[in-house]
Amino acid sequence: MKTHIASVPLEQVLRLLNHGPATLVSARHAGVNNVMAASWVCMLDYDPPKVTAIIDKGAKTRELMEKSGMFAIQVPTVSLLKLTYQVGHMSLADEPEKLEKCGVQLFEMEGHDLPLVGGCSAWLACRLIPEARNQETYDLFIGEVVAAWADTRAFKSGRWQFETADPRWRSLHYIAGGHFYAIGEAMDTAEGMPD
Amino acid sequence: MKTHIASVPLEQVLRLLNHGPATLVSARHAGVNNVMAASWVCMLDYDPPKVTAIIDKGAKTRELMEKSGMFAIQVPTVSLLKLTYQVGHMSLADEPEKLEKCGVQLFEMEGHDLPLVGGCSAWLACRLIPEARNQETYDLFIGEVVAAWADTRAFKSGRWQFETADPRWRSLHYIAGGHFYAIGEAMDTAEGMPD
Repeated sequence: MKTHIASVPLEQVLRLLNHGPATLVSARHAGVNNVMAASWVCMLDYDPPKVTAIIDKGAKTRELMEKSGMFAIQVPTVSLLKLTYQVGHMSLADEPEKLEKCGVQLFEMEGHDLPLVGGCSAWLACRLIPEARNQETYDLFIGEVVAAWADTRAFKSGRWQFETADPRWRSLHYIAGGHFYAIGEAMDTAEGMPD
Repeated sequence: MKTHIASVPLEQVLRLLNHGPATLVSARHAGVNNVMAASWVCMLDYDPPKVTAIIDKGAKTRELMEKSGMFAIQVPTVSLLKLTYQVGHMSLADEPEKLEKCGVQLFEMEGHDLPLVGGCSAWLACRLIPEARNQETYDLFIGEVVAAWADTRAFKSGRWQFETADPRWRSLHYIAGGHFYAIGEAMDTAEGMPD
């Protein structure tokens, strides 16, 4: 599962989320793993990279995040369309076999006690920065990204490979009611400089 | 400019931003208008709809937002690719003619003293919810969406029309260095219900 996974330098992390993909949020505490879908995940800072994630009070993943102080954000692909929808519409509280039923295959990266979802294009390991008021009032969680990885078939040398990769590697962008769009054509401004 | 603009019910506002488009943030105070590009804009809540926007301390738009207590978020299109890049890379502080140089055409909606950018696909009028710690520590601004509109050629009856609209109406999704992607193909889950 890890053959194509490469580390992403922290200064490139913003490129993994800038385009606003639907994400999967995962966490682990006391041997319990959970994964949920979240579209309301966004970059907050770049040095060090931080993210925001809006996680409802009813979400089991939120409890695991709060107890462990860690969570992972990952970028699912067109291949994971059904899984992404399902983990967002089934609760571990009602369905103890949720992850198996949704076909989630978890793996780990050395040094990080976090459940990562196989088949995604990118993974961000985050340390929760506790902000009680934001969490209670707005369900808003802040994480510092401490490590990141990408599947080199989708993201390599600091760039998404959507122009040349199999379309199944494209990111998903959620609207509502099970309706997503895949990311589409590249658009470069004349002013854009290679970076 | 307003021929095709229709009001969007507040309960549908999340559909305007869920897919993570690059946005333009605009504000006005004491007769000064400004517009900037921002990819770090995200839904925060749906009832009433709220958004987060990360706005750097150096941004002139931030000062206008803080002084007026209002701002607008808008969704630019492929047609506005160059404008979107330019307003994100030119400062009103250095370039008093910034908006003219970038080709920004402003308009207003009745009852809202906000500068809106013509040619976008959607507009959200927001009232700043002051949160001093978030603003100072994280450059994170929270806004309650008090009204929203869309161009019916791009968004109609609660749905983006990307499948059938001219591709120039597609949203832009920023990566880095002048490199964007347009939104692409529709993807519906078998489980998705019409809504």
